[in-house]
Amino acid sequence: MASLVQKMLKGDKASLSRLITLIENDHPDTVSIMKEIFPHTGRAHIIGITGFPGAGKSTTIDRLIATYRQKGLSVGVVAVDPSSPLSGGAILGDRVRMKAHHKDEGVFIRSMATRGFWGGLARNTHKVMELLDAFGFDKVIVETVGVGQDEVDIVGLAHTSLLVLTPGLGDETQAIKSGVFEVADIFVINKIDEGDPLKTLGILESVVTTNRSGVNLPRRVIMVSAIEDKNMDGLVDALENHHELWKRLGPEERLKKFIGTDVIVREALMDLFKNRLGQDYDDFKRMLINRKANVYTEIEKIMYAKNNGTVQDFEQ
Amino acid sequence: MASLVQKMLKGDKASLSRLITLIENDHPDTVSIMKEIFPHTGRAHIIGITGFPGAGKSTTIDRLIATYRQKGLSVGVVAVDPSSPLSGGAILGDRVRMKAHHKDEGVFIRSMATRGFWGGLARNTHKVMELLDAFGFDKVIVETVGVGQDEVDIVGLAHTSLLVLTPGLGDETQAIKSGVFEVADIFVINKIDEGDPLKTLGILESVVTTNRSGVNLPRRVIMVSAIEDKNMDGLVDALENHHELWKRLGPEERLKKFIGTDVIVREALMDLFKNRLGQDYDDFKRMLINRKANVYTEIEKIMYAKNNGTVQDFEQ
Repeated sequence: MASLVQKMLKGDKASLSRLITLIENDHPDTVSIMKEIFPHTGRAHIIGITGFPGAGKSTTIDRLIATYRQKGLSVGVVAVDPSSPLSGGAILGDRVRMKAHHKDEGVFIRSMATRGFWGGLARNTHKVMELLDAFGFDKVIVETVGVGQDEVDIVGLAHTSLLVLTPGLGDETQAIKSGVFEVADIFVINKIDEGDPLKTLGILESVVTTNRSGVNLPRRVIMVSAIEDKNMDGLVDALENHHELWKRLGPEERLKKFIGTDVIVREALMDLFKNRLGQDYDDFKRMLINRKANVYTEIEKIMYAKNNGTVQDFEQ
Repeated sequence: MASLVQKMLKGDKASLSRLITLIENDHPDTVSIMKEIFPHTGRAHIIGITGFPGAGKSTTIDRLIATYRQKGLSVGVVAVDPSSPLSGGAILGDRVRMKAHHKDEGVFIRSMATRGFWGGLARNTHKVMELLDAFGFDKVIVETVGVGQDEVDIVGLAHTSLLVLTPGLGDETQAIKSGVFEVADIFVINKIDEGDPLKTLGILESVVTTNRSGVNLPRRVIMVSAIEDKNMDGLVDALENHHELWKRLGPEERLKKFIGTDVIVREALMDLFKNRLGQDYDDFKRMLINRKANVYTEIEKIMYAKNNGTVQDFEQ
């Protein structure tokens, strides 16, 4: 596995792709991969983009990539799509436009397929974000669809989160009620030639001026027309400005801003536990299903106990 | 805490309510509560009910409760609602009808509020299901809204899962593409006086006759009109029949049927880890956010290492 990570760190995109596949598939090497790449992470500006289907997220990302490339910055994109088991994987939809970027050395785009029916949309996405960061992309963009809990978990790990909305669809009302609204830093009103963008602007401006509890980061509303390439520079400026402000946040504010951190901990605990049990993990689940023992007691036995089967106090 | 659990086990509903609130709020006593109730669980028939909003889930549950009560069976219900932070909690909606049951000693109904914005809809629901089981209800019904991953996680822990659909809304097509479709055991076509129920029946029958991989449990389609109390006995018969067949499943089939088991493990790992760190859990997250150390390495230190800080091999 080491050689694959080493190759990836040297800029080999094929190795990057293979590593992402391993992580998507809950491969037991996930733990060693993540440990090995860790020293190479923490450089990228992580940008989360969400919104309802049809809001123009893919076009916005397409234009963002082009703008960043003009500035000489490299961009890695991970798109989290709900998979249709009938169509056999993630649906790329109008992301076809982006394919032109695939030929560009400074760009990498990957769709996360949720595996089978019960993949857990957000479970491994943050690990892929780390991989793209370790690879060395200046900007790492994660795209999700919708405004539910999964999306909050994902964009809650970005430095800068965008919520893309279209005027006149009533999206803003639904979005305001969602958790994503609270985590979004920049509200992008796309398709300003449709509906009544000034009304949407008014609704959003009145809300974003209220401060988020404990996070002293100004929130912005930006109007663009991604498809016509209007005001993409304004959006990029807002992104840069936000990232600079983020860097100045204190530890307490960062804790409140990165609300997806629990997901990292939860998944790491699960990865380590599964690695520990290996082939016995299914036996462990069978024991639970047949109610032979309590899950807490059994985990304590496996994780904490040594020989005598009692929980010990460890000094950290 | 012991006295609260003891009171609950003796049939005190106020104690049951307080225990649910503790678990909803991620109280550190969750672990000890779950351990204490474990020997009293495993008796109830767990029924999962999901479907799109407006399909008539609440009315179906209302009628199910009445039918079970006529048979002398007690029923505990936990309803998982998406919370609106603006309205300040779970929306009961047309579940008002159910309130008549609240006066009935053999019935208990509770709405799970997702706390704040990023509650994690499904995270603690299985623990509440265990509480209702331990209390002694013959039937434990868990109601969720939608057909997403959260719903799969929840109904994937039920013995018998119902998917409630309304004819003519195209719900069946959307449902067939979802994970819930795979885990559902009984498809309830409600509101048979609307739309074209026979068309819906045809679509569903053609799909449910295909066997689910590895689970030898026949799937049924039942037509009812919950509001008119039509064929609720047929639905109850199908539920009983399914439960009897479930009991005969071998360990391998049970493992495939209970696809929500990973959720139990993941949440137990998190509960134990948070209990272990206590007040230091926020420090742990701050360390991750500021990238002082890798999450896997740090968890291994805390969970496995004693004094010398190295990972040890433990015999189980």
